[in-house]
Amino acid sequence: MIPSADAAITRDDKALILAYDHGLEHGPVDFEDVPESTDPETVFDIATHDAVTALAVQKGIAEGYYPSYEDDVELLLKLNGTSNLWMGEPNSAVNCSVDYAAELGAKAIGFTVYGGSNHEIEMVEEFREAQEAAREHDMSVVMWSYPRGQGLKNDTSAGTIAYASRLGLELGADITKVKYPGSAEAMQWACESAAGSKVVMSGGSKTSDRDFLSTVETAMRAGASGLAVGRNVFQRENPTELLDALEAVIFEEKTADEALGL
Amino acid sequence: MIPSADAAITRDDKALILAYDHGLEHGPVDFEDVPESTDPETVFDIATHDAVTALAVQKGIAEGYYPSYEDDVELLLKLNGTSNLWMGEPNSAVNCSVDYAAELGAKAIGFTVYGGSNHEIEMVEEFREAQEAAREHDMSVVMWSYPRGQGLKNDTSAGTIAYASRLGLELGADITKVKYPGSAEAMQWACESAAGSKVVMSGGSKTSDRDFLSTVETAMRAGASGLAVGRNVFQRENPTELLDALEAVIFEEKTADEALGL
Amino acid sequence: MIPSADAAITRDDKALILAYDHGLEHGPVDFEDVPESTDPETVFDIATHDAVTALAVQKGIAEGYYPSYEDDVELLLKLNGTSNLWMGEPNSAVNCSVDYAAELGAKAIGFTVYGGSNHEIEMVEEFREAQEAAREHDMSVVMWSYPRGQGLKNDTSAGTIAYASRLGLELGADITKVKYPGSAEAMQWACESAAGSKVVMSGGSKTSDRDFLSTVETAMRAGASGLAVGRNVFQRENPTELLDALEAVIFEEKTADEALGL
Amino acid sequence: MIPSADAAITRDDKALILAYDHGLEHGPVDFEDVPESTDPETVFDIATHDAVTALAVQKGIAEGYYPSYEDDVELLLKLNGTSNLWMGEPNSAVNCSVDYAAELGAKAIGFTVYGGSNHEIEMVEEFREAQEAAREHDMSVVMWSYPRGQGLKNDTSAGTIAYASRLGLELGADITKVKYPGSAEAMQWACESAAGSKVVMSGGSKTSDRDFLSTVETAMRAGASGLAVGRNVFQRENPTELLDALEAVIFEEKTADEALGL
Amino acid sequence: MIPSADAAITRDDKALILAYDHGLEHGPVDFEDVPESTDPETVFDIATHDAVTALAVQKGIAEGYYPSYEDDVELLLKLNGTSNLWMGEPNSAVNCSVDYAAELGAKAIGFTVYGGSNHEIEMVEEFREAQEAAREHDMSVVMWSYPRGQGLKNDTSAGTIAYASRLGLELGADITKVKYPGSAEAMQWACESAAGSKVVMSGGSKTSDRDFLSTVETAMRAGASGLAVGRNVFQRENPTELLDALEAVIFEEKTADEALGL
Repeated sequence: MIPSADAAITRDDKALILAYDHGLEHGPVDFEDVPESTDPETVFDIATHDAVTALAVQKGIAEGYYPSYEDDVELLLKLNGTSNLWMGEPNSAVNCSVDYAAELGAKAIGFTVYGGSNHEIEMVEEFREAQEAAREHDMSVVMWSYPRGQGLKNDTSAGTIAYASRLGLELGADITKVKYPGSAEAMQWACESAAGSKVVMSGGSKTSDRDFLSTVETAMRAGASGLAVGRNVFQRENPTELLDALEAVIFEEKTADEALGL
Repeated sequence: MIPSADAAITRDDKALILAYDHGLEHGPVDFEDVPESTDPETVFDIATHDAVTALAVQKGIAEGYYPSYEDDVELLLKLNGTSNLWMGEPNSAVNCSVDYAAELGAKAIGFTVYGGSNHEIEMVEEFREAQEAAREHDMSVVMWSYPRGQGLKNDTSAGTIAYASRLGLELGADITKVKYPGSAEAMQWACESAAGSKVVMSGGSKTSDRDFLSTVETAMRAGASGLAVGRNVFQRENPTELLDALEAVIFEEKTADEALGL
Repeated sequence: MIPSADAAITRDDKALILAYDHGLEHGPVDFEDVPESTDPETVFDIATHDAVTALAVQKGIAEGYYPSYEDDVELLLKLNGTSNLWMGEPNSAVNCSVDYAAELGAKAIGFTVYGGSNHEIEMVEEFREAQEAAREHDMSVVMWSYPRGQGLKNDTSAGTIAYASRLGLELGADITKVKYPGSAEAMQWACESAAGSKVVMSGGSKTSDRDFLSTVETAMRAGASGLAVGRNVFQRENPTELLDALEAVIFEEKTADEALGL
Repeated sequence: MIPSADAAITRDDKALILAYDHGLEHGPVDFEDVPESTDPETVFDIATHDAVTALAVQKGIAEGYYPSYEDDVELLLKLNGTSNLWMGEPNSAVNCSVDYAAELGAKAIGFTVYGGSNHEIEMVEEFREAQEAAREHDMSVVMWSYPRGQGLKNDTSAGTIAYASRLGLELGADITKVKYPGSAEAMQWACESAAGSKVVMSGGSKTSDRDFLSTVETAMRAGASGLAVGRNVFQRENPTELLDALEAVIFEEKTADEALGL
Repeated sequence: MIPSADAAITRDDKALILAYDHGLEHGPVDFEDVPESTDPETVFDIATHDAVTALAVQKGIAEGYYPSYEDDVELLLKLNGTSNLWMGEPNSAVNCSVDYAAELGAKAIGFTVYGGSNHEIEMVEEFREAQEAAREHDMSVVMWSYPRGQGLKNDTSAGTIAYASRLGLELGADITKVKYPGSAEAMQWACESAAGSKVVMSGGSKTSDRDFLSTVETAMRAGASGLAVGRNVFQRENPTELLDALEAVIFEEKTADEALGL
């Protein structure tokens, strides 16, 4: 973690990362409920919302769509990923180099590390190369830190999530994305373990507006620096409304109820 | 996908790729019915037909035969492949570098990715290198996207083929070659999932003129950008006739019946 | 071993290395008893104590905190490590390059080698690269030499620890960190086996002041050149007191009792 | 295949390659019947015969003996090989680089590919590097194409040998060495499958003069471009005699009987 | 093999290599009988004896001790090795690069190859890189050729040792170190198989003066070019005496009895 290395993708030291890598990780099935979300333009338009500090996509989508949005969206290039056609021990293919990400205009890189997987060693070494190359380009580094694998029973326990955010710090991430560990106390432990590097909560699968915003509110009060969210935004009929509310909770320290006007 | 990066191997944004990598993938047995197809000259001659926007071959055949056809044929160099002497979990050897493909005069590279195979990670990483090197040479990128492997039961289901074409988009292909998923609806889903990148239908094993052209017609109306075909052309006694008909269906929006003069 | 290559991290040819890589190796659980030890600042402050000749941390912590302590602390960058979320045959991911360690201001590198593991070959080859790169930067080389793995029954026997320190010498470490083998005789064998290169005792898990200092005293008299210690310092309420005592035992040849004022 | 890239090791488009890699592949036991064949000088002397268009040896023998024969022998450096002390799934170590082969004066490289082996992928990728490096040095490329491995029942069937020679063509060899598939028809199929690239018959284990020359005659009439032979020459008391006869059959289109003066 | 490439570590084309890599290969236990042999200085002093044409050590010992002996000892840097803490299929970690060996003043490199091991392919490819790099530095190349592994029943049979020395020749070693195969005839076969490259006998575990010298005498008469010896020298109370005798047998063609003054 280098203090303020993440300035390009944060606002007042907070981050709202819109993630749109589901076409690779889950397949087109994730777009079925809101078919227009199949089209990256829909999501790039959403990402122009003031609340969004960065949009995370894979290489091919950045190639095709980012040129039209360079002035309005900050690009976070997700460097690795895997289809869920494959069922083996968690691993992720590095499908974009840092140099090419920089060429595409990215201000930050995103990288998944599955701590505890039999591929942890390999993934951490790939992360090293990406992280150090990002430093040369003055790009910030975001780790998707998801402990997972054969030996791991509970991947959202308090200890696991605190370990996940600590891995981000120790290995050199500026921002670490972790799953919500289920309580304010556990989230606080995770944030403290990151010791000055930022922790953002993973949005997860779609829930109701109120439930989602309440969890975000809890995470923020527990020390989180924001949110990385995909389905909870683009699977909604009216993403703008939710982004307005998220902006209130994340950047203006409103409660979920205030943000929803309740 | 970079818009119009595929200009050299398309015509009016449509593609008819003649594929001739069967000597490597299936062995000389594929040439037995029409023995003259053993000789690459026969196929290069076919490729001079106006309908053909590119010819896909392996390195050795490009070395030996392309110099005589540079003015009449666009070369798509297929960079990887495997003999079917080997029966293991799907994988493909990278047998030509992008630099050498460029030296041979190729305007595009072709690359197989077996999503879902235990070798998916490795193949996607090899694709990354090829894709980024192709960008440096301003060559277009065609992915043979064939989900296949241990954990995959049905490799031509609608969901699998839509996933296949999405993989092409996300990973940076300009054109993705997929198998025909069996219906117009499924093909449409695959084309929409590619979101602006092109999808071409794989020709598959030889069928009757009418059946073949009807399928191509369906695929085109469902949003496909063309066809990559081998055996259905070079295993015919009169390939020119079929190419005339394919030209009508693909580039002139004729029906299969119109194209056949029925 | 290059004589005096370790000058930057020793004093009168003695070393007291404060190790703080537990967040990666064990997770935040190691900080629970003394919560402020979660914060690297606490440990960097401790490392400003005169007795400490170097502080060993991972890349991310060096990035975030070393810039404020460059004048008061010598940085030993630990180049590899593994989370204990993973349970496989001992191995360690190289998560920082030597070039980047140098850029961060490190005067020495730290590297774990698990002799006897099925990954010994791979780790020794990674160590080679790190060791030779360190020589180019005139950084000193510290090996965490921990024989461990499938075939190894007793990893602190006299023979194993003597082998561990010999591995450090043979492979090119200036200082080798080994576990305490349980007796003065065994420690002496380990130190003689290092034949002129330095051996430092690993601090291990927390014990009482007197027990700990007595072991350190025994090790020093047996020929050790100092100590690499983490939990026995930062898990204490008053680390300064213990560091004062360690300074007396290590650098002033006091007994444990004298050092404790008993 | 690049037309005439093999000019340095052919004569009138025919090749007689003397192969002497048995010390590596089979061990000194192959030299027992004719002990003087243990000494590379004996074989280099044989290779000065006009009929021999190239001598294939491994690196170490080229280093030691080629300097004295540069004017009289064309060097084909065999780049990979394996001892038969090892019994695993067919594979071959690359024991010489193309750059070094060039430095030693080689005009061509030789490379074994075991199609169908579990190591096919790896070997084809190693071949790619060697083949492209050879092109940079204007050296010709000879493939020892030996389908072999777990899944392969009959490695000299007509289909397998035709596939073997096609692999040579597709992957970029100028000359492909295959086993004799047992009949003129099968050999013809193999030669046609090579489509303009050259096929040479592998000499195999020692047989009588007449049997051997008859097979060579059959192969030549079936379209082969020559022979790669070792034991059938150097295990003979009078290799010159046989080479005279081979010259007649290969380069002067004589029958075996004519060549033997029968 | 390049004729006379080994001049720096031979005398009248004979070699007596003192090997001292036991600390890595066997551990400090090898030094227990003669404790002063733990200290590399003891062995460097022995190596100043006129009979010794080179001293073989690992990187770390060369770093620490060779600077004081550069004028009196020729350095043969052993580039790979493994601890015997590890029990797997024979393999050896490359723990020193050739460039670094050259920097340390080495005139020759030493490299173990376990022919027949499941790691033969990997080791031979690592040897290739080392051998070719050594050629660039004009360093001579010594192979420790020890067939060993799962499929090998008798690793000192006549055929195995002849194969071992042939591997040295074929792969490019100037000198090949092999185990004594038990008889003069077998040793002669091994030396002839090396065809002009040198074969040195491995000293093995400690035996009586007379037995040892007799074996050396037999080996020399059978065509060996000398000896590589460790324990039979440094585990003796008076190594000088034995070296005097070895000098007589190896360089002055004395019998064992003459050398011992019997």
